[in-house]
Amino acid sequence: MERLIIGFCGGTGSGKTTLAERVIEAVGGDGVMVSMDCYYSDHSDMPFEERVNINYDHPNAFDTDLLISHLKDLKAGKSILHPTYDFARHVRSDKWVELKSAKVIVVEGILLFENKELVDMLDIKIFVDTDADVRILRRLVRDVKERGRNLDSVVKQYLTTVKPMHERFVEPSKRLADVIVPEGGYNDVAFNMIVNTVRRKIAEQEDLC
Amino acid sequence: MERLIIGFCGGTGSGKTTLAERVIEAVGGDGVMVSMDCYYSDHSDMPFEERVNINYDHPNAFDTDLLISHLKDLKAGKSILHPTYDFARHVRSDKWVELKSAKVIVVEGILLFENKELVDMLDIKIFVDTDADVRILRRLVRDVKERGRNLDSVVKQYLTTVKPMHERFVEPSKRLADVIVPEGGYNDVAFNMIVNTVRRKIAEQEDLC
Repeated sequence: MERLIIGFCGGTGSGKTTLAERVIEAVGGDGVMVSMDCYYSDHSDMPFEERVNINYDHPNAFDTDLLISHLKDLKAGKSILHPTYDFARHVRSDKWVELKSAKVIVVEGILLFENKELVDMLDIKIFVDTDADVRILRRLVRDVKERGRNLDSVVKQYLTTVKPMHERFVEPSKRLADVIVPEGGYNDVAFNMIVNTVRRKIAEQEDLC
Repeated sequence: MERLIIGFCGGTGSGKTTLAERVIEAVGGDGVMVSMDCYYSDHSDMPFEERVNINYDHPNAFDTDLLISHLKDLKAGKSILHPTYDFARHVRSDKWVELKSAKVIVVEGILLFENKELVDMLDIKIFVDTDADVRILRRLVRDVKERGRNLDSVVKQYLTTVKPMHERFVEPSKRLADVIVPEGGYNDVAFNMIVNTVRRKIAEQEDLC
């Protein structure tokens, strides 16, 4: 069975997670979702004050080797035990979650297209492209209202790391996309095109079984 | 029967026509293709010297009303008699070509997304996005080698009308796309996504019949 890996990349607040989740929902039990956010490197050896200052928007902040190894396992039909991340304490949490493989493996993250080995594993590469002003507003509302952060700290982090890293790593990686989806999660035409292709791939696999 | 209209827009040399033709080829007799290039307005009342100087990259150069009316006819299942254009003489030629409607109507052109009434008729809007340097090289090679034009005239036309009109009308119209396809005609992942969606639409229509 040839499992399909489909990657969703895009800046913070672009709507990539929403779109990826809608695709997973549409394919039901035939899909499994992996979020790159779970693969932040552990820095529990550092004091909290230092951990807070890590640049979490740089590729080095991620344990990309582990993500690649997990995608290889899922592609081979094996289950994985994926890490989870404690965003309040800035460490990998003790909880590891079992994820069974499926016909369609969806993976999403801001720096997904930055690593060549990772990119080469993706059968379909989708970049969700949303204007920077819309993206920062979404992020700001989410961080302030849902995560209880204060306005000044969100603005400071955006201007010092999120924006420069976006321009350095995320935006240029758009060139690697097979398809660019404007306006993210609620673009129904793009969503239907993706789901049609994924469903066709599932049907092909069922024919092979 | 609900016929599908799918529009391909993009700058000169972007690969939009190649991609549109590949889609038409893939759906065989179920598709019909309309090229906006055939709908240049007739200016046979002007002397040749004046016609040469018309800005052919401006929306006003097109008989968009006729194109809209023809798309309405095709959508309603009616045949059309579409115009053809004599690019050497810069006039509409005497030849009108009958085109039968089909389940899938493909329409392509550089200014396809510029007219709101036209845009509203498109069920799927695809923008083929290719870097400007690659696009001008493709156009230049085509115009010099295939159309016997001289280098200087191609460069002059590009810098005086093609480029400014692209930036004024074509590039901003990308925002209206449902899906953006990088690198044009030979992007197989994007091609397959489009064809899967078109085939599904055809199958749905057959179920309705």
